[in-house]
Amino acid sequence: MATGADGPRDRVVEVLRLGHRPGRDPRLSTHVALTARAWGARRLYLEPPDPRLAKGLSEVGDRFGGSFEVKGLTNPRSFLRQYPGTIVHLTVYGEDLDSVKHRWTGPGPFLLVVGGAKVPPEIYSLAHHNVAVTHQPHSEVAALALVLDRLLGTPAEEERSGARLRILASPRGKRVEERAPPGAGPPAPGAAR
Amino acid sequence: MATGADGPRDRVVEVLRLGHRPGRDPRLSTHVALTARAWGARRLYLEPPDPRLAKGLSEVGDRFGGSFEVKGLTNPRSFLRQYPGTIVHLTVYGEDLDSVKHRWTGPGPFLLVVGGAKVPPEIYSLAHHNVAVTHQPHSEVAALALVLDRLLGTPAEEERSGARLRILASPRGKRVEERAPPGAGPPAPGAAR
Repeated sequence: MATGADGPRDRVVEVLRLGHRPGRDPRLSTHVALTARAWGARRLYLEPPDPRLAKGLSEVGDRFGGSFEVKGLTNPRSFLRQYPGTIVHLTVYGEDLDSVKHRWTGPGPFLLVVGGAKVPPEIYSLAHHNVAVTHQPHSEVAALALVLDRLLGTPAEEERSGARLRILASPRGKRVEERAPPGAGPPAPGAAR
Repeated sequence: MATGADGPRDRVVEVLRLGHRPGRDPRLSTHVALTARAWGARRLYLEPPDPRLAKGLSEVGDRFGGSFEVKGLTNPRSFLRQYPGTIVHLTVYGEDLDSVKHRWTGPGPFLLVVGGAKVPPEIYSLAHHNVAVTHQPHSEVAALALVLDRLLGTPAEEERSGARLRILASPRGKRVEERAPPGAGPPAPGAAR
């Protein structure tokens, strides 16, 4: 989708992942974080905090650019009560996405809340909207991707600030462009395939 | 999206998950399977087979209806060579989704291939299209959801054949309708909340 001065991609969108289990869910929460980052969300709030996951995402940013960050959160209820924007809780029990998304106008901020297996009942009332992507059991990663896509559009192939690696579209195989760090010489031959 | 006689929801879409690691990936592959099922794909082929995951999805079908199934696969290369439809491999290295999806016409079948960390190079040439949803590292669950949404549309709230439970849209809290099995009496008071 094209980015205009006030286009959907200028919206500020953040994600809150509730009920992360550092021992059990590292890969699923990593997929939540990578999906948020790939679509252009600014930040993931992770409850409870998981410094290892935050470090992993920071390393992705070192390679692929941008300023996405993971912030640990210990008290999501007070965070939600003070949130200065629109809170959208993604739940299979909510209203149909396509019946409520027309109400989301303006630049944000939007906070998309995704839970684990058990979400405390207060979350349903602290959210401005409880929204279902489908009413079948599925995946918080899938639901998040769809809502981000509706809010921000599919990200164009763009260079993110500070990227060392850039993946280029290709009909077959892999094309990755490697950028020299600032001040270094040109990349060695063969570095860009 | 509305379903017409020849609308997108009549397309036959299947999913192939490559490189599943039964010990390590059960939750991620379960999210792949649930996402495929929620959007209306007919079947997930899982390589290598994982009877426990197949049983889990079969139990979801017992509760929420429909005929989605998980089939184990041991030789994906020969399966792909013989596949009688369009093979779309989802990879961050591929062409932009929105630049290729106009080529996907007709009723299918379509096979959406999602890999794990390492995908054998032949998969790129056995596929008719290698397609990226973004060129940033993210999640095969997110990529699958987006491509299913483009191919089939967001599923409407619909009853699936044989469902015992149906989740209803609600602005707050949870509404689940319980169906009596065929031949049983009416549901007990309070069963539908």
